[in-house]
Amino acid sequence: MEIPQDVKNLIEAGCPAHLVTLNPDGSPQVTLVWIGLEGDELVAGHLPRNRKVKNIQRDPRVVVSLEADTKSSMGLTEYAVLYGKARIQEGGAPELLQRLAEVHIGPGVKFPPMENPPPGYVTRIRVDRIEGVGPWTGRPV
Amino acid sequence: MEIPQDVKNLIEAGCPAHLVTLNPDGSPQVTLVWIGLEGDELVAGHLPRNRKVKNIQRDPRVVVSLEADTKSSMGLTEYAVLYGKARIQEGGAPELLQRLAEVHIGPGVKFPPMENPPPGYVTRIRVDRIEGVGPWTGRPV
Repeated sequence: MEIPQDVKNLIEAGCPAHLVTLNPDGSPQVTLVWIGLEGDELVAGHLPRNRKVKNIQRDPRVVVSLEADTKSSMGLTEYAVLYGKARIQEGGAPELLQRLAEVHIGPGVKFPPMENPPPGYVTRIRVDRIEGVGPWTGRPV
Repeated sequence: MEIPQDVKNLIEAGCPAHLVTLNPDGSPQVTLVWIGLEGDELVAGHLPRNRKVKNIQRDPRVVVSLEADTKSSMGLTEYAVLYGKARIQEGGAPELLQRLAEVHIGPGVKFPPMENPPPGYVTRIRVDRIEGVGPWTGRPV
């Protein structure tokens, strides 16, 4: 699906993403990651082939949960939950991490901080459905 | 397990919780909830028998992800991911929600906002393992 502009704004402002993947036994795994946008795809970079990369290679079902710094009229913290399918692309992680680090840490930072980082992996997520509390749900709270 | 004091502080300061449960088809569901502590158990209240309540009644595996407002020495957002098993207790939701609303919305708020709310459900979570980035992991980043 097309990602609504207000969710794109949340992502591009540098809101960290709680990324949920599924372990081999079906239990959920959660890590906080930096995400970016490439059109209507979400992208995240990983240097090692860590557990979330392996999880996505086995089961593409993921959730990205974003906590906004705004409140609804009832005083609830607004948030967006993006349900989708992910795939892993080999390579491209250092360039993506460098771009996202400038948003999440600050302009001019060098990230990854080492020389000659490995090519790593990029997670690419297509979003099927958005839930949460906020203008993106179309429901008042 | 016993919850470390710095994670307890995060919870009691009113950090919203990304609660992950598992749907009947094994896919993850995420909602932002208010959590509190009763000893070393996490508690959350729900007025209706909503999807997360039904999910926990079928599969007790849950994750609670907490985003702190602090940064690690590398500039990463600190967070705690609590893996555990949940159970549903019938009743007690309005009293718990009232207590948590005073932390999350503000002192003196009436919550739930209606007269005679239903008794609802309380989720009680025992934590098995804590991951994330922060002093609670015991690993520098």
